Amino acid sequence: MRALVIHGGAGAVPVRMPEAERTAYEESLGRVVDAGFAILTGGGTSLDAVVTAVAMLEDDPLFNAGRGAALTRDRTAELDAAVMDGRDQNAGAVTCVTRIKNPVLLARRVMEESSHVLLAGAGAEEFALEQGMGLMPNRYFRTGRRLAHVESMQHGEDVPDLMPASQGTVGAVALDTAGDLAAATSTGGLTNRLPGRVGDTPVIGAGTYAKNGVCGVSATGEGESFMRTVAAHHIAAAVEYRAMPLREAVTELVHEILPGIGGRGGIIAVGADGTIATDFNTPGMFRAERDASGRRTVAIGP
Amino acid sequence: MRALVIHGGAGAVPVRMPEAERTAYEESLGRVVDAGFAILTGGGTSLDAVVTAVAMLEDDPLFNAGRGAALTRDRTAELDAAVMDGRDQNAGAVTCVTRIKNPVLLARRVMEESSHVLLAGAGAEEFALEQGMGLMPNRYFRTGRRLAHVESMQHGEDVPDLMPASQGTVGAVALDTAGDLAAATSTGGLTNRLPGRVGDTPVIGAGTYAKNGVCGVSATGEGESFMRTVAAHHIAAAVEYRAMPLREAVTELVHEILPGIGGRGGIIAVGADGTIATDFNTPGMFRAERDASGRRTVAIGP
Repeated sequence: MRALVIHGGAGAVPVRMPEAERTAYEESLGRVVDAGFAILTGGGTSLDAVVTAVAMLEDDPLFNAGRGAALTRDRTAELDAAVMDGRDQNAGAVTCVTRIKNPVLLARRVMEESSHVLLAGAGAEEFALEQGMGLMPNRYFRTGRRLAHVESMQHGEDVPDLMPASQGTVGAVALDTAGDLAAATSTGGLTNRLPGRVGDTPVIGAGTYAKNGVCGVSATGEGESFMRTVAAHHIAAAVEYRAMPLREAVTELVHEILPGIGGRGGIIAVGADGTIATDFNTPGMFRAERDASGRRTVAIGP
Repeated sequence: MRALVIHGGAGAVPVRMPEAERTAYEESLGRVVDAGFAILTGGGTSLDAVVTAVAMLEDDPLFNAGRGAALTRDRTAELDAAVMDGRDQNAGAVTCVTRIKNPVLLARRVMEESSHVLLAGAGAEEFALEQGMGLMPNRYFRTGRRLAHVESMQHGEDVPDLMPASQGTVGAVALDTAGDLAAATSTGGLTNRLPGRVGDTPVIGAGTYAKNGVCGVSATGEGESFMRTVAAHHIAAAVEYRAMPLREAVTELVHEILPGIGGRGGIIAVGADGTIATDFNTPGMFRAERDASGRRTVAIGP
């Protein structure tokens, strides 16, 4: 019943994307889902699979997380990430880190090596150093494409959201052979935002949640709406307490609860039986999935 | 059906507290609940009542929020706060602010004057300045009592938790005449913690939640457990979707869900009908409540 689903952001973009770019995204999503699924078929844990997948997406400048992050109005990269282990609801997250190459790896350290769940900013980086992790200059994360985007916005140009998923995130949810669920999410945040703005990604229950026997969830989109609706936990509570099938719970959140407060974005989720659910109320969502039946899909549009 | 309940932290302390100190706490809690309830009887909103009550508790050095905050291992004060409006699930929060006299007032500005929900650190303070709010030196928040506590802990002394609610928070939940619910929470965090550690207080769904027709909730205690269980939203979901009476939902969270992961603390909540629910799995919780029936209680122990 192994299953892995990943996302690379939800947005209004895919229609306008040149074919070569679309291919690059699809190839990257395929590589990442294959690498994560190989961990599961090799007997690895869902936790290892989701962290590996998210770290690969962080390293790929195509996606808004790690290198290639969307930039603040001060043109700096500020990164958030979270991971949750469905076995015991342990969780770790970091927010506003500016010099951590793979925020999801630091989130995992917070979960496994500290008594805390969420560390912010300089304190999170101090913890990283104490853990023997190195720091990267902020410049590593800033790509020309993201700089051009924030500059265009600041010059008041009417910039269509040409960059795929510039308001997005990356994430992964998996079920392993032992029946354990895990979820991880990482983001560079919104382009041209106020420095210090924290979205749903590092908030357990909003952008990331996992509980064995129930489901794992990772969200992408306009983070404030996911925070106000406590989106990931809303889905888990619907499955656990309302006996709602996972796909219905995801659809309810995406097409009823979120639009009720004007929220836009998407959800990926995996149920305790390996069911994969993905849905979004934006024109597209970058995603890929593989499961034990041999199904492998990579998609960007509807 | 007006109702207001406030808390000033949950902990192991009350038994050891000198009588004069107990009286000082009870008098302060009484003053605050009276001031907040006067807003409700004067036709004010639940939002004004909870923000006013929490700001008063922040100003009082007896409580672990605002002035008198528990200090980090670097002996600095880092403050978190959140507020949520039950009418539209709008919410605002700040984390790791070090120079904001009343973090709950800044949280309200984030909710009402920005498109964001959560702002952290220097970015939150920059937003405060842009809003015309002044900054306070960090020294304002540090009291001799909290400094002595963190120093004792760092010298390896076996310090019983003599300071009431040093791991606590302050919070308020109210229902107004219009039937609108609101909740607010504020904290100075854990003594001797890693700088940058964020607890449940500023996390919507964990330490703070409000939804009209359902309930408002504010939590206090060991924050990581409230984050991992998405405690406040767990209670709201039980009321909304499992038709569980509010008091049962609070008791389930405090005595079943939280202990399941070793969590300690307490909850205050108000239902859509004005029912007040308070419960805790610690020896005591500083609290006070008033409702439309004329009941007024102030309590610290069981």
